Amino acid sequence: MELPKSIEIVEVGPRDGFQNIKEWIETDTKLKVIEGLVNAKFKKMEVTSFVHPKAIPQMKDAKTLAKTVVEKYQDQVAFNALVPNLYGAKAAWESGIRQITYVISASEAHNKANVNRTHEESLIDLKQLKKELPDMHVKLDLATVFGCPFEGEVAVEQVCGLIQASIDYGIEEVCLCDTIGVANPKQIEEVLTAITSQFPEKEFSLHLHDTRGMGLANVLVGIKCGIQTFETAVAGLGGCPFAPGAAGNIASEDLVNMLESMGIETGLDLGILQDTVDIVRNKIKDQLTSHMAYVDRVCKA
Amino acid sequence: MELPKSIEIVEVGPRDGFQNIKEWIETDTKLKVIEGLVNAKFKKMEVTSFVHPKAIPQMKDAKTLAKTVVEKYQDQVAFNALVPNLYGAKAAWESGIRQITYVISASEAHNKANVNRTHEESLIDLKQLKKELPDMHVKLDLATVFGCPFEGEVAVEQVCGLIQASIDYGIEEVCLCDTIGVANPKQIEEVLTAITSQFPEKEFSLHLHDTRGMGLANVLVGIKCGIQTFETAVAGLGGCPFAPGAAGNIASEDLVNMLESMGIETGLDLGILQDTVDIVRNKIKDQLTSHMAYVDRVCKA
Repeated sequence: MELPKSIEIVEVGPRDGFQNIKEWIETDTKLKVIEGLVNAKFKKMEVTSFVHPKAIPQMKDAKTLAKTVVEKYQDQVAFNALVPNLYGAKAAWESGIRQITYVISASEAHNKANVNRTHEESLIDLKQLKKELPDMHVKLDLATVFGCPFEGEVAVEQVCGLIQASIDYGIEEVCLCDTIGVANPKQIEEVLTAITSQFPEKEFSLHLHDTRGMGLANVLVGIKCGIQTFETAVAGLGGCPFAPGAAGNIASEDLVNMLESMGIETGLDLGILQDTVDIVRNKIKDQLTSHMAYVDRVCKA
Repeated sequence: MELPKSIEIVEVGPRDGFQNIKEWIETDTKLKVIEGLVNAKFKKMEVTSFVHPKAIPQMKDAKTLAKTVVEKYQDQVAFNALVPNLYGAKAAWESGIRQITYVISASEAHNKANVNRTHEESLIDLKQLKKELPDMHVKLDLATVFGCPFEGEVAVEQVCGLIQASIDYGIEEVCLCDTIGVANPKQIEEVLTAITSQFPEKEFSLHLHDTRGMGLANVLVGIKCGIQTFETAVAGLGGCPFAPGAAGNIASEDLVNMLESMGIETGLDLGILQDTVDIVRNKIKDQLTSHMAYVDRVCKA
């Protein structure tokens, strides 16, 4: 098994995790979790969404939260925020955010459900966003690449078309997302091979959900296909508020544990991360889909 | 990715799963779950343990249960029972069981904790058992092959020594067990390569726990190393009553889903299996570690 020396893990729990929790989480509690994640040494973190509070009330403190964490930790962490449109991107910029995530779903049905736009409309808005905020670093999250709750399988050609258009409009990064955790290892290999052969110069990251338990198996295949960056969420939080059947992200601590036990460096502190999982468990959510949340830390093996 | 046409899954939930549940489960409820598993088309099933009721009270109905299922389903399923010693093996034989699992832990400390014997004592008893019951098909479960809760890592030489001695005494099968779910994919490859190169003629099966979420990733590597048989438990039940930090087996439905979605035949009916998971959830245990137990079955992808 040929393995890389290191892998980058991007923490998305404060965005993808919290947005899926219905009960209001106090901003201070969110900040405590983020502090733990900073101390665990994440260098990149998706920290909130600049969405309309009516769509996702949990993210209504986006401005305050973004300003606070940027001021406090900007020397240690590159913070990113999800935005659905130019309006959100401008609000993010005003809050000190210099990296955003813009989402387009590879399946048009999910794009309609998620951001209420056609592919064409999403691309026009992206172009406009890049024009008005040329210095904003944009990561494109391509959702439902490996399957859509409404349309089923998604054609790779469609995915590649969206990637090409976004690159043409000047986006800096592309993250391929298994929004509903339906991808299997064989499919990961097939889709990644098809995409990377069409864009050999481009680096892609992977955002996988562990809905069906295949998360870490899929990471393993992703690594084999040359992926160097994976997005995960502390405590295995997450899902998609507009995709039926979507459960949590791969738990950050599960991935750190697997990679470090295989001798792959993540630069992260598993112990501090597990302490942060405890904050989530005690203050936000009792039952977690994380595995490492329940492992006896005294156990020798 | 080179994949086999089919993989055999052996259901061990009625043994490894039930034995880890403290509250008494009525024999009728156990039989309902087993009926579901038979209908889901498992061809091999570890169905109970012939252990002292003081050690594991949950298994006190071993005789009745074994007799019932053998009588009812012996044309469809090869039933197996775990035995800790000759006494248990004889009781199993009298109940109609013709295949047993005999456990030796690769680490001596866990062997003492689990069956209160040294390696030497375990091997002497195995020899005696094979002598007195020559027609009993014996599967050796080698526990803690990939790590011990008391000793940490276990030397492969020690594992190979126990395999060789057991083969010399006439056992028919060897199952390599990650009792506490600590193995990582790299280790699986290293250990399997070392063992199979020393026993190139022998087929091995794998019994993996999903404690740290690496279960399906480890299966993937196991398949790559030529393993054709995996033991799993319905609903992800399981653990080890005498190993701190051990959590559930890989859920049978999670493995069936992964393999079938990759085009690998299991011969199993995922829908009936998920219905059986519902029996477990409704009558035995609310919170399951299974992933497929919580997947929306209406979801198209």
